[in-house]
Amino acid sequence: MIKQNHSRTGPSAVGKVSISDDFWSEYIRLVREVVVPYQWEVLNDRVEEAEPSHAIQNFKIAAGVEQGSFYGMVFQDSDVAKWLEAVGYLLETEPDPELEKVADEVVALIAKAQQPDGYVNTYFTIKEKDQRWTNLAECHELYCAGHLIEAAVAYSKATGKNAILDVACRFADYIDRVFGTEPGKLQGYDGHQEIELALVKLYQATGERRYVELSHYFLNQRGAKPNFYEQEWEKRGETIHFPQLSIATDLEYSQAHLPVREQDQAVGHAVRVVYMCTAMADIAAETGDEALLAACRRLWGSIVSKRMYLTGAIGSMAHGESFTQDYDLPNDTVYAETCASIGLIFFAQRMLQIEPDSEYANVLERALYNTVVSGMSRDGKQFFYVNPLEVYPPVLGKNKNYDHVKPQRQGWFGCACCPPNIARLLASLGQYIYTVKGEEIYAHLYIGGTAELDLNGTAVKLEQQSKYAWDGEASFRISVPQETVFTLALRLPDWSGAAAIQVNGAEYKVSEADIHNGYIRLKRAWQTGDTVSIAFEMPILRMQGHPLIRQTAGKVALQRGPFVYCLEEADNGGQLFHLSLPATSELSSAFDTGLLGGMQVITGNGVRFDSKHWQDELYRRDADWTTEQTELRFIPYFAWANREPGEMSVWINSMN
Amino acid sequence: MIKQNHSRTGPSAVGKVSISDDFWSEYIRLVREVVVPYQWEVLNDRVEEAEPSHAIQNFKIAAGVEQGSFYGMVFQDSDVAKWLEAVGYLLETEPDPELEKVADEVVALIAKAQQPDGYVNTYFTIKEKDQRWTNLAECHELYCAGHLIEAAVAYSKATGKNAILDVACRFADYIDRVFGTEPGKLQGYDGHQEIELALVKLYQATGERRYVELSHYFLNQRGAKPNFYEQEWEKRGETIHFPQLSIATDLEYSQAHLPVREQDQAVGHAVRVVYMCTAMADIAAETGDEALLAACRRLWGSIVSKRMYLTGAIGSMAHGESFTQDYDLPNDTVYAETCASIGLIFFAQRMLQIEPDSEYANVLERALYNTVVSGMSRDGKQFFYVNPLEVYPPVLGKNKNYDHVKPQRQGWFGCACCPPNIARLLASLGQYIYTVKGEEIYAHLYIGGTAELDLNGTAVKLEQQSKYAWDGEASFRISVPQETVFTLALRLPDWSGAAAIQVNGAEYKVSEADIHNGYIRLKRAWQTGDTVSIAFEMPILRMQGHPLIRQTAGKVALQRGPFVYCLEEADNGGQLFHLSLPATSELSSAFDTGLLGGMQVITGNGVRFDSKHWQDELYRRDADWTTEQTELRFIPYFAWANREPGEMSVWINSMN
Repeated sequence: MIKQNHSRTGPSAVGKVSISDDFWSEYIRLVREVVVPYQWEVLNDRVEEAEPSHAIQNFKIAAGVEQGSFYGMVFQDSDVAKWLEAVGYLLETEPDPELEKVADEVVALIAKAQQPDGYVNTYFTIKEKDQRWTNLAECHELYCAGHLIEAAVAYSKATGKNAILDVACRFADYIDRVFGTEPGKLQGYDGHQEIELALVKLYQATGERRYVELSHYFLNQRGAKPNFYEQEWEKRGETIHFPQLSIATDLEYSQAHLPVREQDQAVGHAVRVVYMCTAMADIAAETGDEALLAACRRLWGSIVSKRMYLTGAIGSMAHGESFTQDYDLPNDTVYAETCASIGLIFFAQRMLQIEPDSEYANVLERALYNTVVSGMSRDGKQFFYVNPLEVYPPVLGKNKNYDHVKPQRQGWFGCACCPPNIARLLASLGQYIYTVKGEEIYAHLYIGGTAELDLNGTAVKLEQQSKYAWDGEASFRISVPQETVFTLALRLPDWSGAAAIQVNGAEYKVSEADIHNGYIRLKRAWQTGDTVSIAFEMPILRMQGHPLIRQTAGKVALQRGPFVYCLEEADNGGQLFHLSLPATSELSSAFDTGLLGGMQVITGNGVRFDSKHWQDELYRRDADWTTEQTELRFIPYFAWANREPGEMSVWINSMN
Repeated sequence: MIKQNHSRTGPSAVGKVSISDDFWSEYIRLVREVVVPYQWEVLNDRVEEAEPSHAIQNFKIAAGVEQGSFYGMVFQDSDVAKWLEAVGYLLETEPDPELEKVADEVVALIAKAQQPDGYVNTYFTIKEKDQRWTNLAECHELYCAGHLIEAAVAYSKATGKNAILDVACRFADYIDRVFGTEPGKLQGYDGHQEIELALVKLYQATGERRYVELSHYFLNQRGAKPNFYEQEWEKRGETIHFPQLSIATDLEYSQAHLPVREQDQAVGHAVRVVYMCTAMADIAAETGDEALLAACRRLWGSIVSKRMYLTGAIGSMAHGESFTQDYDLPNDTVYAETCASIGLIFFAQRMLQIEPDSEYANVLERALYNTVVSGMSRDGKQFFYVNPLEVYPPVLGKNKNYDHVKPQRQGWFGCACCPPNIARLLASLGQYIYTVKGEEIYAHLYIGGTAELDLNGTAVKLEQQSKYAWDGEASFRISVPQETVFTLALRLPDWSGAAAIQVNGAEYKVSEADIHNGYIRLKRAWQTGDTVSIAFEMPILRMQGHPLIRQTAGKVALQRGPFVYCLEEADNGGQLFHLSLPATSELSSAFDTGLLGGMQVITGNGVRFDSKHWQDELYRRDADWTTEQTELRFIPYFAWANREPGEMSVWINSMN
């Protein structure tokens, strides 16, 4: 029934990659052995200490195999879809018949919950049968559809089984009959972008061009006047699903304030922005829509030049999980949702496919090695939704501006978007390492493993060995069916000093001419057995913020390689705001094997200010401050909050 | 009908004072000529640019002289009462037959709106007739009653007319029949403390001891278990008046979490805390309740040693207009309600009556000369509800953590508690200058004018001339019917260096023994014509915050005399966070006659950090920062936001 087309039809391919890496393999093992099994238990409400999910139960009720009421968020279905998507990625790299059997049962359940017309959504099927498509601004129907489609594409690709892809296509076909500019169709679009990028994946999996057109329609319709959300709101009697927010009228929240091609500032809900941009880049690539690509570049610039944290986090404000204003980057009240940085990685990946430039990969790396990994504990059992750059525990629970900030990762969330999002990203991490474009193979990330890439019909195999994360070293072994001319483009990370390259064991002197858009380009006729090794200088960097960021004025943060560092109370005592790092202080880095599985730790001489003679006065003049030398110890940001709870800060006062 | 007793019966008297002062007379003139007339127009909805008030209209409807619905906050009545109270204070010091005629009509209207049983409240009379006393936690019935009583006491004292006092007593008598521990009575107390302090005033005006007992009952009942608010909430079917807050269940919000004698931390809504403490001090003074006084001292300590801003502002958080945690004093997201500092002044005044100690008067002065005066524009037409210590306009309206912060004073507010509160405080400022205790006359504030004080039956007249605010000088001329021995105790402000005193033109050398609890005590047999002059050294102070206040770490704020200073963009350019004040920088002060009516301005050499070579990068290493000398110009905090809107900061980076 469905025209299957498993070959990648996009503008550039990511290849088939399996990972074997000092740093990442452990995380992927955790996803496989801990996260995905744990999430399955949660989805089935079998974890006592987690908030109830009810997500599988909702599907059972919608499928008519159990009785009961809907429970959970209006987008609860998407938790099941993201789990299934992660399972797909895991099965693609390593068979697991038992897991596949469980997943097949989920597929059968979803298929059974699908309505005769193709519709799938347990909330509306169980709870508001007659209210389909009446509250697109708030109710996530197309968002859930998008996640179901992404799951279907991943799972069918991994297993070769079409059942879930059939469900997805029948649903997409139904959506295509409901939405559009033609008379009688609904001229709406979802409040939370997701369907748009999913439809492109569905097209890439099936070759069905209508899905690209439907995605293009959703993007084109967004922000059209008169505004659809205001109209549907009036039409349904001004009812509100989320009374804390003003989604129907606050059009910036869901980027519906302007047509997408006219948007040049990242505003509103951060996850929505980056999911939208991902789809815009996809559609630009698939259709050659230059205006859309130009808007992608503008929005990228708005995010990474004015509205992003050093850790690759985005979303300065808890209210609306939103962007705020250029250079407004508070470290303590920040939202910095894990999902938002994951979406930023999607966006970066799509831009790299269109126009390889290390700017995109540098940000991708920054988000991945800092905010995303920070989102999960070192044992894979707990998660951060919010990733602050500064935490002062005594005020948490007291000052409500910090109500979203937790000093420790949590087991699960009522709104459980982040844990399964981390799982699916890590399970598919291989898709972010390389792109092939014409006769060029780009290595964006230095993550060990094996990649099978299709270079215009020639199968190129790259075996990467990497000690990149801690030591800045990687090497490649090339296999080709016959001698093949192509360019191997190796990213020069933004944190690196000089890079030393060896080709087949001989030093290769990099010239300026070799470097283009941040990649060192090695063009030659490659043969099987050729090797390339690259070693980056990995200095400890004192990073500073733009002069207009008031929250970083007079401060520095340390970075070494891809990792941003932080101070924790466990190493440095309390009142981190009394610590300073003199500009002249020497810093050194050493691998601490005993720390949370082993990691590079930075130490250096710092200064602690204190006023021992201060009595009870709240304010005084002529205070007698003392300074004492102290050793400062910085650990990678991603590893924070894995010991006893305490203060944490990425930025430290600098002394001139 | 009512036993009138206009003489002050409290533990110490404040006397009859009229003000004639370089600094304050202008403010009092503004209250008389601008604020009170303007507020009258607002209360009658005749000011186009102000939010509608409807407060007088509500009374007309409740009185049956007009038809219509209630409009406004549930405590809208209190705006009329505070206005009438201010009018009383104005009439007490200067007759104004026209104003009195208007006020008499208001009195007649209120009397007409009074129900046969004595109840006065337009919200419940018009809108929820059968719901009296069903939501004490949220609905402010006794709060409004308290303000009506305060107005009645002030207006009857000023005019000698008893009509409004009759209304107040009938209302209080009715409340006394409804509330109490006796069977059949309601064992409740108001969510917003106010009735408690008002009943003490009503007792002092009438001599009716029952009012003290009723007030004592309200204080005793607060926080008793089982909790009254939880009980009434269940009883009325768990309805909520203010859905944004959780008043019925968040017992700390209204200090109902513990019996008042067991409270030792200032928590919850800041205005409620200080109004409660004021009444606790009143009742302690009237009844000798030592446990209550001990709680007052503890709560005072909690506020001023751990939870107060340098400007005398309180309430660190917008949510719930509340205290947060010890040493949590954010300068930008702070609430710092004008009313809260006014309440802190009430509390300080009562403590001064009980136990004169300059600690109370120093805080009173700090709140008065900074946060309270800041609350009103230099033309008396605009007001601050919120008084931040740091404002960065580009993020206002974008980052919702600042939604309560305005960069300019506003004409009126939907919740209009602050403007009439400023008016009534300034109109009664004379009550805060002196107290008489036994054979001691305490001068707490150096505000020019004439005071007629009752020293155990002897009429002592003090004529104070003051150049205190800007120059630190004041002098007193004493008139007594006959030579009288008493102690004139002059406060030594906490900001002062040495004080030079002259008695009858001759230098008086102050010895350590003369100073007690922060007052210089001059005991002698005083004769008419005796003069005392005092001159305080007024150095420019570099104030610093307690080591545990993270928001003031590494910063200083300037203070000279009673005034805290601030930097404004109008004088110093933008990006105030790039400015530093070196510890070695000399500071000087000069009177700028051209600035907003004239004020002392502080200047000194500072340093501006900048990075001219910074391009578009959001973060970079090896940034090339430049420093340039710049003249810093500080103006008194109270005068901020009277020129073009811009950045403001009280605290500036210090350089060691």
